[in-house]
Amino acid sequence: MEFRFGRKAIALEEAQRIVLSLVRKQEEEQVSLPEAFGRRLARDVAADTPVPHFRRSGVDGFAVRASDCAAASPIRPATLTVVETLSAGMVPQRRLERGQAARIMTGGVVPDGADAVVMLEMTDRLEQTSELPYHVQICKSMEAGENVTPIGHEAQRGELLLRKGRRIGPGETAILAAFGHAVVPVFRRPRVAIFSTGSELLPVEVPLTEGKIRCSNSFMLAAQVMEAGGEPIMSPILPDDVREVELRLRAALESADAVVTTGGVSVGDKDVLVELFERWDGEVLFNKIKMRPGSPTSLGIWRGKPLFALSGNPGACYVGFELLMRPYLRAAMGSDAPLPDEATAILETDYRKGSAYPRYIRGTTRVEDGKLKVRPAGRDKSSIMVSIKDADCLICLPAGGTGAAQGELVRIMKLNCEGKE
Amino acid sequence: MEFRFGRKAIALEEAQRIVLSLVRKQEEEQVSLPEAFGRRLARDVAADTPVPHFRRSGVDGFAVRASDCAAASPIRPATLTVVETLSAGMVPQRRLERGQAARIMTGGVVPDGADAVVMLEMTDRLEQTSELPYHVQICKSMEAGENVTPIGHEAQRGELLLRKGRRIGPGETAILAAFGHAVVPVFRRPRVAIFSTGSELLPVEVPLTEGKIRCSNSFMLAAQVMEAGGEPIMSPILPDDVREVELRLRAALESADAVVTTGGVSVGDKDVLVELFERWDGEVLFNKIKMRPGSPTSLGIWRGKPLFALSGNPGACYVGFELLMRPYLRAAMGSDAPLPDEATAILETDYRKGSAYPRYIRGTTRVEDGKLKVRPAGRDKSSIMVSIKDADCLICLPAGGTGAAQGELVRIMKLNCEGKE
Repeated sequence: MEFRFGRKAIALEEAQRIVLSLVRKQEEEQVSLPEAFGRRLARDVAADTPVPHFRRSGVDGFAVRASDCAAASPIRPATLTVVETLSAGMVPQRRLERGQAARIMTGGVVPDGADAVVMLEMTDRLEQTSELPYHVQICKSMEAGENVTPIGHEAQRGELLLRKGRRIGPGETAILAAFGHAVVPVFRRPRVAIFSTGSELLPVEVPLTEGKIRCSNSFMLAAQVMEAGGEPIMSPILPDDVREVELRLRAALESADAVVTTGGVSVGDKDVLVELFERWDGEVLFNKIKMRPGSPTSLGIWRGKPLFALSGNPGACYVGFELLMRPYLRAAMGSDAPLPDEATAILETDYRKGSAYPRYIRGTTRVEDGKLKVRPAGRDKSSIMVSIKDADCLICLPAGGTGAAQGELVRIMKLNCEGKE
Repeated sequence: MEFRFGRKAIALEEAQRIVLSLVRKQEEEQVSLPEAFGRRLARDVAADTPVPHFRRSGVDGFAVRASDCAAASPIRPATLTVVETLSAGMVPQRRLERGQAARIMTGGVVPDGADAVVMLEMTDRLEQTSELPYHVQICKSMEAGENVTPIGHEAQRGELLLRKGRRIGPGETAILAAFGHAVVPVFRRPRVAIFSTGSELLPVEVPLTEGKIRCSNSFMLAAQVMEAGGEPIMSPILPDDVREVELRLRAALESADAVVTTGGVSVGDKDVLVELFERWDGEVLFNKIKMRPGSPTSLGIWRGKPLFALSGNPGACYVGFELLMRPYLRAAMGSDAPLPDEATAILETDYRKGSAYPRYIRGTTRVEDGKLKVRPAGRDKSSIMVSIKDADCLICLPAGGTGAAQGELVRIMKLNCEGKE
């Protein structure tokens, strides 16, 4: 009851702290390496061998003893006897002695005794034959170590290469493959049940009628859940009857890892999530946040599982997910930096609108002469849906004041940043 | 034969032009809206109705005739008779006459006759009842149009909202749902057959032995293909026998949409892709690019299908994919900006290495005071695999010179930018 009339607004940072304090890590599951793309590691990955694990030739040419060609030059080449041919993957059969060389390919094992590799272009063969032994002239003075990658140069044995919680992209995949992880431990994708509420909503496949709109928010949320690495479960539109809503949401909280609703959280006559929070046996952790859009964004918890109740306005719903639910999902899959990446950018236009609450304006960035510039993405009113696609960041304006002026440095939060962290 | 000994290096831009000239668009297929996430649209999407398609209330309150409350204030409120209650989704049953108001929720249809909506907070009810008719006091002077979103404010009927080729993220999904696209026409994912070559390669699940390494490049490429929206087909490691290689690659070119190989393209004694290109009945479009790393990157075409032959060095393989094959895949799925996004950034360290060819150095960006800064991502040598994961861009240094100095503005190409375009 106190929630309907006595909502206490908290700061976004406090709301995020509460959200992250509720996170329960997903269990671990094993997937094949190609399936691990886009997932998050459930365990640290360390190098179980050094990389490379042998002295590796960095070029195509001849392995030599540098001391044999210390004075070599195109005019006074050193002549060596080639005693072995080493393709990549071959194990040298002999130690290189003074005056000897071994033909070696990029990636090949540098034989014992050798301490440098001369590029093919810096050598001349004296005979046409490739039959061993043959002779080669080295036309370049060599130093020990040249073109030889020492053992452990890329990674020492035991070195931590990938932290638990890291999202697996191409570079991570290369490391996992190199260390033999044909099967990868990842966090199970959180299953997120998605509900829309509002008597104006129609299913997507139904023709529009006067006053009705299609429930686009739940499909948008499904895409946001997938982008965050979760698995969306689309649920039918909720009715206005609070008892029915309670039954359906409780069933969803029992089977899914988290639930998100859109709509029904303001103080209108039929705001069914507000009614639910007054009567259910769960806890309401907050029901108002000092932010625009999305101030009625609420969070409930029932038997340890979160119910994110987002605004029904498309822009507010989108922002509420990005600022609160995406961090929850990322943290549940082990991310150690689950909040949106922040940066600063130069505002390209005046934004003349103060607010009693901080504002999070959908923005579009571009770079000019090494400077990051940002402007609001199309029309930003929280009810406006068509410009959500154009945003790559949120421009964060503090409470009070009159807005921000062109040329001012503003704080931004990056969107769609699942690629790297 | 001319290719082995007489390779003619072309500029990267020329190589990219050739790649894009070969693109054949993927066919269209129909997928359900949730499945369309991450895919690319095969058709333009225009608004088939205006948005909103009725005069929409932007707030929770009372629909009024502004002329009835032109002089209203907290001290001299206007008293109106409430004749209807309009939840969102309800169709008004009557026209509002002078002296009348209608209770209306956010998103509700503003009734004919009304031209403004007063926020609930600016009103007082005179009676406790909600039984119609009842009276309400309006404490704020209103102007026509206030809190009423006009028809077509977000989008006019017929307005192009999403272009063919656009990648479908949350904002695009919202638009598709709003216009009733339960089924979405997208470009079929290109099927990309991936091959590694090199006698030093072991399958991922096999223990390391002296001189051998696991074929991490093909798994990395699989992740790159998926990131680009394609479907990877992992193939067994190729043998050194060129006849066998030819059979296998030809079979792959017959069944897949494109083929990529890693390794075997330099001029070593056993470079099997070079051998293949000398004898097959396909065409070789280029076999050397003026770039480091990845100069031996080659492109063949056989019956209209491309064979990208990338370097076996992990860094060169990665860069070759990003600069050439990802643009191909993006264009095949309709992207009209398939090349990597470019920007400029301030170099944070000296990079003292000139080259006869332009260099593409894996880099990591950060933003400080609105300035985009970049540094090389760990150790960048093309043979080094463990630092691929740390790059979010390529730093592009032109040919010649001695490198670039700290503080210099350098050109960069963004990586992992599938999110937005």
